[in-house]
Amino acid sequence: MGDENQKSKRGIPPKSNFNEWYPFIVEAAELIDKRYPIKGMDVWRPYGWKTMRLIDSHTHKEMERTGHGECNFPLLIPEDLLEKENKLVSLLKRAREQGVDPEDLRHDEEEAGFKKEVYWVKHAGENKLDIPMFLRPTSETAMYTMFPLWIRSHADLPLKIYQTVNTFRYETKQTRSFIRVREIHFFEAHTAHVDEECATKQIEEDLEIVSRLMTKFALPVIISKRPTWDTFPGAWYTIAIDVVMPNGRTLQVASVHHYRDQWAKAFDITYENINGSQSYVHQTTYGMSERLLGAIVGMHGDDNGLILPPAVSPFQIVLIPIISKNNSEIILKELDLISEKLKKLGYRTHIDNRNIRPGQKYYDWELKGVPIRLDFGQRDFDSNNIMCTSRIGGKEQINLDNLEEEISTKLNQIQNEMVEMGANKLNSSIKKLPQLINEDGWKLSEKIENDKVYWTAFEGTDSDAEIIERLTGLTFLGESLDNLDSEMECCITGKNTNCKVFLAKTY
Amino acid sequence: MGDENQKSKRGIPPKSNFNEWYPFIVEAAELIDKRYPIKGMDVWRPYGWKTMRLIDSHTHKEMERTGHGECNFPLLIPEDLLEKENKLVSLLKRAREQGVDPEDLRHDEEEAGFKKEVYWVKHAGENKLDIPMFLRPTSETAMYTMFPLWIRSHADLPLKIYQTVNTFRYETKQTRSFIRVREIHFFEAHTAHVDEECATKQIEEDLEIVSRLMTKFALPVIISKRPTWDTFPGAWYTIAIDVVMPNGRTLQVASVHHYRDQWAKAFDITYENINGSQSYVHQTTYGMSERLLGAIVGMHGDDNGLILPPAVSPFQIVLIPIISKNNSEIILKELDLISEKLKKLGYRTHIDNRNIRPGQKYYDWELKGVPIRLDFGQRDFDSNNIMCTSRIGGKEQINLDNLEEEISTKLNQIQNEMVEMGANKLNSSIKKLPQLINEDGWKLSEKIENDKVYWTAFEGTDSDAEIIERLTGLTFLGESLDNLDSEMECCITGKNTNCKVFLAKTY
Repeated sequence: MGDENQKSKRGIPPKSNFNEWYPFIVEAAELIDKRYPIKGMDVWRPYGWKTMRLIDSHTHKEMERTGHGECNFPLLIPEDLLEKENKLVSLLKRAREQGVDPEDLRHDEEEAGFKKEVYWVKHAGENKLDIPMFLRPTSETAMYTMFPLWIRSHADLPLKIYQTVNTFRYETKQTRSFIRVREIHFFEAHTAHVDEECATKQIEEDLEIVSRLMTKFALPVIISKRPTWDTFPGAWYTIAIDVVMPNGRTLQVASVHHYRDQWAKAFDITYENINGSQSYVHQTTYGMSERLLGAIVGMHGDDNGLILPPAVSPFQIVLIPIISKNNSEIILKELDLISEKLKKLGYRTHIDNRNIRPGQKYYDWELKGVPIRLDFGQRDFDSNNIMCTSRIGGKEQINLDNLEEEISTKLNQIQNEMVEMGANKLNSSIKKLPQLINEDGWKLSEKIENDKVYWTAFEGTDSDAEIIERLTGLTFLGESLDNLDSEMECCITGKNTNCKVFLAKTY
Repeated sequence: MGDENQKSKRGIPPKSNFNEWYPFIVEAAELIDKRYPIKGMDVWRPYGWKTMRLIDSHTHKEMERTGHGECNFPLLIPEDLLEKENKLVSLLKRAREQGVDPEDLRHDEEEAGFKKEVYWVKHAGENKLDIPMFLRPTSETAMYTMFPLWIRSHADLPLKIYQTVNTFRYETKQTRSFIRVREIHFFEAHTAHVDEECATKQIEEDLEIVSRLMTKFALPVIISKRPTWDTFPGAWYTIAIDVVMPNGRTLQVASVHHYRDQWAKAFDITYENINGSQSYVHQTTYGMSERLLGAIVGMHGDDNGLILPPAVSPFQIVLIPIISKNNSEIILKELDLISEKLKKLGYRTHIDNRNIRPGQKYYDWELKGVPIRLDFGQRDFDSNNIMCTSRIGGKEQINLDNLEEEISTKLNQIQNEMVEMGANKLNSSIKKLPQLINEDGWKLSEKIENDKVYWTAFEGTDSDAEIIERLTGLTFLGESLDNLDSEMECCITGKNTNCKVFLAKTY
């Protein structure tokens, strides 16, 4: 399309230079504006917000399908509620460090570090507040304060709720749009169950939801059980869902936590069981955020801009009139009819009738990643055709009589190809970890590549893991949920195991 | 339906005692939970949040229809940005007080009182912030900081954006769910135009949107231009939309502001006009909030609970199986088919198959205000009928072959009757103000009734208005947008005028 010049004029960095491409493209495609005067708090522009809300809409559909109720909790949490959480977190942390049962430590309490990561509201108007409040970093504390009021008997269980809200984290690391921000567009589901087994089934349901969503978003993922030292505070275990970005760094886009009855004990959430006595509930949470959009941007863009999966693209089809002074009315009228027909079928369409050259429009919509572009001019009108260009490549004339069918086929094709391309990218970015050799200390048989994620067989201790992390410069993502097909030697102990772990540089 | 006993058992206060009925019903119907430990910050429960989101969805549709883009701005605003706003607000306030042109005072600045109403973030983690930030009470300051970056030339205008977000106000008055809260679910549209006339046209568009929405919500409204002293800070004029609640108090549910170029001058928002020189934009805003839900609750409920308009009811139709041990499978299966058929037509349905008595279910859904209830048992199955009960009264058998048609007719009827009932309530709650008589000071010819809103002809000064307010205990809502059909004597000066003003006790 001969816009090689325009590109360099506009100065999009090549995607191979991902660390420059990404921050450039999120602003150039008008997803967000970073010029708001607080670092890490960006303004969502209409195109970005619409994309995010489409991502949300798929999540909401899954929540409805699985019987979760949508709530909305207050943003502010009084400090005194945090005490319960702090005690729990510090208790579990020390139990882990000391390798003992948390129960043994339950009465021995200490402040945790959570307070270091929150924004504080200690003043209102001209008053100093009696009890300081903080902006939620996540909503366990707010929600579990209410759960005892809502849960009386086993008939109230399972309790399954979710919300999509703004959360806050006082990030001191470098911020990056969607990836590491200080105001986070956040989804969180919280459930309470009669026992551990029912909570475990919830984790399975969550992972099924994750799988359905990631297919919609054409995001191939690595699912792993985080190592103990990287488990969410207060969780029994954490399952994390990571996307490999083009620079080889993994981005955690979702996580699922099994809390057992640990929070229930801290917040006194009990129910009357069928025997008439009180039991603690078992809880889970499932979280995702605007990182999903960051992952979609990173996974699918190219040198010309974004490539959005049809399921989340604000416009799935953009229609460009090719007009002269004489025929503008008739062409626009026909294009309107075409667009309305597609809209009625449920497609999101947009006619770009700005008074600029078509080449400029092509450039803009390519940058914004719209899956299908339809150009329509006099020649097309005369021949009852329309020119269809796909954002992932390919251009063909479509007879207007077959348009609905062709568009449906094309969007499915684009979706499927994006899923496949994603899977290929993931496969080609995962390698087996080079051999570890112990001669006067540990060495690697080969150098670690910068843009790769590694797997290896592992059954060692935490300190073995530390050796590997130090040697490779990689971080343990965790254990694959799938065992190795057949046993292999642990990379460090040499003992046979079917446990497969992933290691990566992480965001 | 013989649940008079249940009612008193459950203890719903009669609606005639509105000040007790309202706070009871919002919790009993599970719209919100007020037991969250911060006053004025309630937890939205799934039923309430779904209702609110349906209200929002109609607003969003109107915004899409009229070409507004949906944004999402950061919650936090650095204090230094507020300085611009404070200067503007205090300038306009003093200009009004002194009856002079704001231009004459532009360089003479002073702090305004806005800071008294916000929550402050001055600490993050363990640090004191260099620049304090506050939680947005509304987003003029945040948005107008970005507008100069987005508006370059007349081609960028009009700029029309909106957002639906949480806003905060440090209320010191008594809080009431949806009506006066400290975290507010808020809608705000902001526009910028080339000149005053174009901004005025926007105000007209906003009022048309208001009218369409209020019909959907079956809310009869009083629309008036607020008196100068009650105009939104920074606005040239404010048009307010008030609903009369059953206790006679008016509740402002929406407002539309014409800013002229006052904010543009404070925030330096200019564009290159067609002559190549710089002009200030003219701006408007349009705001609504969760008060809409408060108004719907207040306007339409009765002694048995809520009555929700079909457009915003989480379920439009609830289906109740009337089963015995022998037929439960066949009845539930048939009810499922009926529900699916209605869902496919776009209706929101819910089958209540809880293991409790039907009478209890009737009670619950009446309380929650669902427009249509369908009961289905063996006799209905045998005769191919279903029993249809309308929340606003009436019960009839419907042949299942005509169900779709009958439901459509019924929901339209309910909607229309709710609009009509609302209009009747409004008409009967508005009275002409008793005559004012001046004999050794002003007197009223008749007593003011507690639950009424008053109108009168008025062309007096601000101090005349003050006399009336003091004498009646009422507040000036403002001037009706419609003139009197023929001139009448001003209630205080006696001069002829066609200006009609409204007065009320307000929330």
